[in-house]
This record gives sequence, structure tokens and C-alpha cells, in this order.
Amino acid sequence: MRYTNCFIPTLKETPSDAEVVSHQLMLRAGMIRKLAAGIYNYLPLGLRSIRKVETIVREEMDRAGAIELLMPSVQPAELWQESTRWEQYGKELLRFKDRKDAEFCLGPTHEEVVTDIVRREVKSYRQMPFNLYQIQTKFRDEIRPRFGLMRGREFIMKDAYSFDVDSSASDLSYDKMYQAYRRIFQRCGLRFRAVEADTGSIGGSSSHEFMVLADSGEDAIVSCTQCEYAANVEKAEARPAPAEHAEPRPLEKVETPAKRSVEEVTAFLGIPSSALVKTLLVVADGTPVAALVRGDHDLNEIKLKHLLGCETLEMANEEMVTRVTGAPVGFAGPVGLNIKIVADLAVQGMKNFVTGANAGDLHLKNVTIGRDVTPTQYADIRNVVHGDPCPRCEAGHLELWRGIEVGHVFKLGTKYSEALRATYLDADGKEQTIFMGCYGIGISRTVAACIEQNHDADGIIFPIPIAPFHCIVSAVNTKDAEVMAACESLYRDLGAAGVEVLFDDRDERPGIKFKDADLIGIPLRLVVGSKNLADGKVELKTRRTGEVELLPLADAVEKIRSIVAEALGR
Amino acid sequence: MRYTNCFIPTLKETPSDAEVVSHQLMLRAGMIRKLAAGIYNYLPLGLRSIRKVETIVREEMDRAGAIELLMPSVQPAELWQESTRWEQYGKELLRFKDRKDAEFCLGPTHEEVVTDIVRREVKSYRQMPFNLYQIQTKFRDEIRPRFGLMRGREFIMKDAYSFDVDSSASDLSYDKMYQAYRRIFQRCGLRFRAVEADTGSIGGSSSHEFMVLADSGEDAIVSCTQCEYAANVEKAEARPAPAEHAEPRPLEKVETPAKRSVEEVTAFLGIPSSALVKTLLVVADGTPVAALVRGDHDLNEIKLKHLLGCETLEMANEEMVTRVTGAPVGFAGPVGLNIKIVADLAVQGMKNFVTGANAGDLHLKNVTIGRDVTPTQYADIRNVVHGDPCPRCEAGHLELWRGIEVGHVFKLGTKYSEALRATYLDADGKEQTIFMGCYGIGISRTVAACIEQNHDADGIIFPIPIAPFHCIVSAVNTKDAEVMAACESLYRDLGAAGVEVLFDDRDERPGIKFKDADLIGIPLRLVVGSKNLADGKVELKTRRTGEVELLPLADAVEKIRSIVAEALGR
Repeated sequence: MRYTNCFIPTLKETPSDAEVVSHQLMLRAGMIRKLAAGIYNYLPLGLRSIRKVETIVREEMDRAGAIELLMPSVQPAELWQESTRWEQYGKELLRFKDRKDAEFCLGPTHEEVVTDIVRREVKSYRQMPFNLYQIQTKFRDEIRPRFGLMRGREFIMKDAYSFDVDSSASDLSYDKMYQAYRRIFQRCGLRFRAVEADTGSIGGSSSHEFMVLADSGEDAIVSCTQCEYAANVEKAEARPAPAEHAEPRPLEKVETPAKRSVEEVTAFLGIPSSALVKTLLVVADGTPVAALVRGDHDLNEIKLKHLLGCETLEMANEEMVTRVTGAPVGFAGPVGLNIKIVADLAVQGMKNFVTGANAGDLHLKNVTIGRDVTPTQYADIRNVVHGDPCPRCEAGHLELWRGIEVGHVFKLGTKYSEALRATYLDADGKEQTIFMGCYGIGISRTVAACIEQNHDADGIIFPIPIAPFHCIVSAVNTKDAEVMAACESLYRDLGAAGVEVLFDDRDERPGIKFKDADLIGIPLRLVVGSKNLADGKVELKTRRTGEVELLPLADAVEKIRSIVAEALGR
Repeated sequence: MRYTNCFIPTLKETPSDAEVVSHQLMLRAGMIRKLAAGIYNYLPLGLRSIRKVETIVREEMDRAGAIELLMPSVQPAELWQESTRWEQYGKELLRFKDRKDAEFCLGPTHEEVVTDIVRREVKSYRQMPFNLYQIQTKFRDEIRPRFGLMRGREFIMKDAYSFDVDSSASDLSYDKMYQAYRRIFQRCGLRFRAVEADTGSIGGSSSHEFMVLADSGEDAIVSCTQCEYAANVEKAEARPAPAEHAEPRPLEKVETPAKRSVEEVTAFLGIPSSALVKTLLVVADGTPVAALVRGDHDLNEIKLKHLLGCETLEMANEEMVTRVTGAPVGFAGPVGLNIKIVADLAVQGMKNFVTGANAGDLHLKNVTIGRDVTPTQYADIRNVVHGDPCPRCEAGHLELWRGIEVGHVFKLGTKYSEALRATYLDADGKEQTIFMGCYGIGISRTVAACIEQNHDADGIIFPIPIAPFHCIVSAVNTKDAEVMAACESLYRDLGAAGVEVLFDDRDERPGIKFKDADLIGIPLRLVVGSKNLADGKVELKTRRTGEVELLPLADAVEKIRSIVAEALGR
């Protein structure tokens, strides 16, 4: 495409309301424009990258045997009432009435609609397994839409739903999707991890998130240095720590005037934070529970919630703390505490540690498990930390990363098929409930995550597979007929070789052209200038490495074709 | 694709709530399923045809130099208030509030959004011309959604918008789109007409509709037997009729007891309907006006409305007729009538005709223009009829057709650019208003229109370019290993030759397979049976002609490849 016939409104300045780098760069590169909070126009350049991701997703879904369909955005309330989500889904579900006062919503997801299709058409076990997917515009009325495409309200998603006769067949469908997702993000040219994740409110037995690694990621994830293990920090398992061999010393009270936090107490007492045990009071379905974790560890509320099997879990407020411990906040301790006490596995073998004394300005020293405190239960209730031993293999330890969630696969079990009565007759003619899985990819979000991972001070650095164009041909001087003729033939020949070319035919200074090329992140730049051309040469710059190479004009097409073909795995 | 791995829920019975044939057949062929009134799931087979149309549209839009982008479905009220359409657009505009009580609508069209994008980015005449298009899901809250995809509420549309410096530049952009649209519908394999159309409420100076010809079409259109002229009946021009040479006879009153309609009066008097002139009373912006058209012609209210330049035009009610003519309905006539009288051109030279006498049960005979009646104005205010002379050429006459509107191109002028102040600086640095055009294609509707045009008692007859598959390979006996082996190799080799194949690998009786193949309308059917195969033969049936041919197995792939390639213009 010719730059003058494209619509690429680049910006010199960073828009003041864009907080994250992908949002800033997508605005500056003319990829998107805001229409309303969390609602964006995808301009031609942005749409091209989105379509690249779509195509890769579609090819891999098809290859995995999934079948594409397209469900509506506007969904009737009745189906959501059947699944009970009409009540459960909060204000993110945008609801409205049509001209006849019938209630509808804008689909944030399609479990209800797809289950409705399937329950009408599937009668027999012989019709399964199958997997239906769509690439479609979704709407979620986020309370704080921000970060551009990273957390928008209207966005493009691929959602797939598998239907199987039983749990083990459903596991196979899940594995197919897991493998397809790995191929998708590999083909996009992204560094990512597939991590075990908590199933959260969607329920079901198993779940993985696909995380694009980026320092700016909102999610903390871990992976093993040796084996394949990777998990969201919410879910990552900690191993029990070996018991300490020290001799217990006598319990002591020690004055700690106005020292409340772990940092304050350990600094005051001159001990490492791992020699202190935090006593955190939570309220589980209305009942107070004490959670003990080492001073250098953080409580993982999701693990604790699963352990207690409660509906709601929150940190106790000041009043509750005072009522239960008899002391102001900051001085709670397990000794003598008359409520359920859950201790983290790392606390299990600890001796001679410090805790609050359940009295103002006082802590206890040399507290020892078994002698001074007997927790009701030991369990893994902390977040893992960098360097923790891997829970799966003997050799590795855990590394911490920041990630951006771009895909999520879930085993749903029979949650929706039971609610909507999606059943089939088995080989014996007996009615059975269908097992489902659901599998999402944030298509527009993947492009934003790619930019979070791939950029520098000059702009975006697209991987070739999802770059809006593979190569930009820059004419240094559009007044030079020979330069323009060489550009035209490069443009034509590269196109014929399957390379997507943006031909910068603008009558602009080279500096402006080069800045724009860097900003919009085209992987390969071919510069055609009068001087080099006189020697039969053109200049190739690789955006990622900054490497510059003078090439014979005659070799340029083949060189670029081969770089692109290799990147696309052709 | 293998039939057993596809999701094609065909139905034997015609669903009772489907009134038109495309709706019936799309349901029966498992192409669509209803989710709510006017809202449909596109099942895999339906989506495949929709995507074929999308691809042809995209290729031709790109070829015409248009640039693809994607605008949101959810649009803020503010922009619609700026264009004043927030008030003007009726209940078809679905409006709602988000969680923060801000007003939005679901986009039925995107003039406001695209003009907003352009006014922010375009500063100079040098940035034009350009044309932005998208393929996107629209929502119009139709009061009576029906006929399946023919008049749905949620539907897929291609909408394009051109931006030019002035009216004549805008005409060029319009012509490019007109030509692109011709190519699009030709490539889809449809019989269609591009007709001049009334610009209606969108305004602007010029407009064409693209009509797929089908007996079930809602629109009446005409085209010339000799030249390129074609128009919507609303718009089609009538030529003046030559004056009659007869001698005027004396005016006579004749009793016509209870004879009111043209049919009743002419039968009673034994005259042809062309010897009677109807006097139709209309109310234009509150004022009564009489319109005279020949008894065998129909008044064209749109032409009359344009002529009178009024805001509202409606037929007079009984009370008004009696008040103005002094007679009951059915006996109005122009003689002695004291209001504005507009006579159709065909009435201009008439002599000795019959009209009402403005008195109950009485008509006038031998009424003659100029002697008995002098209309205020002569004008073309009737619908053309089959056989009318062409208004453009000397040789041809008009043929009447029924059509389904699938595309519409409009010159918008400055309607939206003025309202939203989309301006640019011309070469002299003077601020000017941008000229716009808009160009729509109903993508999902095109598939339905195709079926209205192409079907028989057995089902759909898809043209190859938009068929969900080009060819179906039917295994007569799936237990016969040789049959299955031959099918597998045909499936593989046809695929490799670029033919899209549905392999009917179901363990079903041949009758069921053939019925389904006919119903879903796959253009070419290759039947592989044990008996023919023993002779090295397979059977090729062409869906459209019903022609059956025995082919050597070895020739089948090349034969089908060449038929498909020819149909696709490869």
C-alpha cells in the first residue's frame, strides 16, 4: 500500500491521557482513536495487526478441528435468567430494552447462547465431540476502562466452546485447545507462558491462562527454571519448608512501642523478617479466622478461601481485630487466641519466632510451634516468591514474571449444560448431561500486549507475523525519478513475492519518514536514496536490532522475502 | 471439511414461522438459527457464505482504493446530537445508558463516527480524496423484523464513506464505488440491476440502488430493453404521451349509481381504463391538492411530493374529500374544482375522457383538457408501467422487475460535514467543507437475496462464488473400503487443487445424503458408489441443471477444478 493512499495519522506528542506504553504508542502510531471511554476506532494500521492475529487464531482453531460460527451481540435476557447470570453478573453486563420493552444485554461472553444452540440440535452421543468458535465483538461495561485496548469496554475476542460426552473426553478437547493456544502465541512471535490459573467465578475443575511476558503486566506469574511448571501467583503451589533444628528458647514478652508493621518490628528487634510470623485476621462468611504466614511471605487469599470453602472472605476491620485480640491493630498473635488458626506450611516447623502479644506495644519472642501455638490446620496459604523450590520437579526453582493475560482456557464441566438442560442420549439410550469447556483469546488485547512486550524509545517493534506490514520502502527523494522507479519496482516485486509492503511515497524529509517508520514499528525498512542507488545499492535496516546493511538492489527482494518467509514459517 | 466434523443441522420440515423462501431454506439447510426476533446465529454453513461475500466485497473495495478500518458498535449520543439525528432517527435507533448513566446507541450506520474521525485528522486538501470502509455488525430496531436475514435487526453490513474537496471530485469517488459494486455483484454470480433511486431522507444529489432480481423482491424496478437505463419505480421517469387527435365531443353527465372504483365505472360504461382520469385528493402540508392520473396509471406520491416541495404528503381522508368536492368518495373530478390541480403528463393531451362529477352517483363523459379543465401544472407524477417508452433512448421500452435491495450508493454532499464541521484548508489556505459519499452493502442480506433468486423445490442452488462449499463428495456406502479410499483421495486432491470440498462421510442412506446435498445447495456433487467405482467411474451432478455425468475417476479432479476456476474467474 502507498503511504499517501493510507490513513496513518501519526502523532509527535504522547497524548496526556494515555498511561501505558501500548496505549500511547497505538495512539501515536495512528493505529487507534478513542470514540468514548474504553471504546476505540481501529484505524487501518491497527486493524491490519488485529486481522493478522485473527487469521493466525482462525487457522489454528480450524487445524484443531474447531468449527467457526457467529453468534449475535444482542442477547435476550431469558437465556441469562435461565443460567442465573442475569442476577449474578454485575454492572459489567450492559442491559437495555428494545422498542417493545423486551430485555436484552450486549454479550460479554456467549456460554448461554452457544449452549442454547447445542441443546436444540444435539440429541445423541454420536454427535460429539465438537467445538464451536467465533471471532466477535464483545462488550463489558468496565467501571474503570483504561489503558487503551488493554482494558476496553468494546473489544474483539475469539471464544470457543467444546461439547463432550463426559469429563475425560472433555479433558481431551481441553488439551487440544491448550496445544492450539501454544501454537497461536508462538506463531504471533510473542514471549509467553501458559500458567495454571484459579478457575474463579466461572468454576470448573481446571484452567490455564496464557500470559504475554511484559514488565508492565498486571499479573504476577511464576515458572520453573527446569521443568514445564508455570502458574499464576494466585494458584502457584508452595512446598513445605524443612523444619528448623534449633532448640526452643523460653517465651518472652518484649516491648515494641508503636511498632506495628513487619518492617518496623523486625528493624526494632534486629531480626530478619523470616523470623517473624504475621497473624492476619480474616472474616470468612462472617466468622473470624487467624491466618499465620512468615513475615517475608504474603497471604494468598484465594488459597485460603478455597481451603475454608467459604463464599466470602475479607480482611477483618479494626473493630473486629480489637474485639478478637483485645489489642489494637498491629499486635495480634496466635498465642492464646481462641479462634480457628490456619498456619502456612512454611510456619509448620518454626521455632523461636516473633509474633504480636495481643496487647498494645507488646510482642512475643521465641514463640515455638507445638509448644506455644497449635494451629487448627496447616496448609499452603501464601504466595510463592522468587527462588521458591518448584512444586513439581526436584531440581528447579521458581522465577517470577509480570504477564498480561491474552488467553484463558477453562474446563466448565456441567455448569451451563445443567442450568440450561443440555443433554444427550448415551449408547444405552440414557439421558446424560453434556460436558463443556470454554476457551477465550483477547484478539485486540493481544496486539496491545505485543506492544507492551516489543517497543523502545522510538516506538513499536512488531514481530513480523503480526506487523501491519512486513517492510516499508522509503524513497529518500521523491523528486528523483530513478529513486522513484527503483521504489516502484521494489514495491511491485516484493508484493509479488508475498511481502506486505508499505511504500512511503510521501513528499517529506527523510527524517520524518524514518521517525514514522520506527514509530509504527515496521520490522524491515528499505531506504532508497540517490547516492546509494548510483552504486546499485539500497539500505536495509532491521527495526529490532537497529542493524543497517547495504545491499545490491538486485538482491533486496530475495533477501527480504527469505527473512519474512522464515519468520512466518513458510 | 468432513460432514461428521461439521455442524449442519438440516431440517426435513419447513418451520411454520418462516414466510419467505430464503428464510425457510436457510433454517432448513442449517445455515441460521433464530436467537430472538430479527436476531440470528450464523451457523457454520451460513457463515461460510457470508464470508465469501465479505471477501469479494473486501477485494473489490481494496481494488477501488478504499481503506479498511473498524469502528465501534456502541456510539455516544453526543455525536448523534451534533448531527441532529439523535432526535430525528426514530425508534429504530436503539438507545441505552451505560453504568455511569451516559447515553449511547447501537450503531445502525456510521456517518457521525467516521466524520468525527476525519474532522480530527484531515487539515489540508492534500490529504484527499480517500475512502474509508468497514465490514461490521449493525443494529436497527425494526418494528416488524421478519423474513429471516432479509429484514433482521442485527446484521452484517459493509459501509464506506468517501471524502473529497468538492462536488465534482466527489462524483469521481461515487463512480468508482458504482463500478466496484457492479463488479462485486457480478463476482457473486447474481443477476442484478443498478437502478437510479430516490435519495429519500438521507438527502444528497444522487443515488443508485443495487437490486438482486427475484420474484419475491419487495421493490419494483424497471430497466430499458435497449439501453443502460434502470431505476426504482419510485424514481423511474415517464415520457409525455403524444396528444390525441380526436375531435372533442360535448360534455355530458352520466349516472353511475354506486360505481366508485376505476374498475366499476369503466366496466359499467364499457370503456377502457385508459379513457378515464382519476382525481386523487392529497393533503400537502395541510393544503388539499388534486392529482390527475390516467385510470390505468398509479400516482407516484414521491414524485408529487418532490414537485410540491412539501414536508408531508398524505391521501385526503373521507371528510376532506367530501368537504372539497361536495361529493362522497369515488365521484371526485377536476371540472369546477377550486384547488390546485396537478395533472400527469399522460393526461396533458387527453380528450373525451371520463371523470367524477363531484356529485354522488354521477360521472362526466367527454371531458377535454383545455376546454373543461385547465390544470395548474403538468408534471410526471405517475409510476411507469411495463412497456412505457424509455426516457433515455429512442428505441427501447421499460421492463418491470421485482428486486431485493442489497446495495446503495449515495452522494451525501456536505450534509454531515457541515453539521459536524469537517473542513479543510484549500490551496489558497481558505477553509472549505468536505464533500462526502456513503456506500452500503448488506452482506448477510446478499446471501438471503441470492437464495431468493436461486432455489428450486429441493432447496438452495448456490452460485459457485458464494456457495459454502464448491463440491460435495458423497460416499454411497461408507462400509465399502474402496469407496472410502476413493473418497479420501478425491477429498485430498480436490482440496489441493483449490476446490472447497464437503466430504459426506456420514453413515447414512444415499437418499438422505442426496436430499441434504440438494437442500444446502452445493453446486457440484460427486457420488462415489461401489458399482460405478468397479468400472473406474464416479458420477458428477450439477445442482443447477440437474445434469448427471459419469466420469472416469482419474478425470474428476481436473474436471471439477476447471469448472470452479472458470466460475471464480481464476
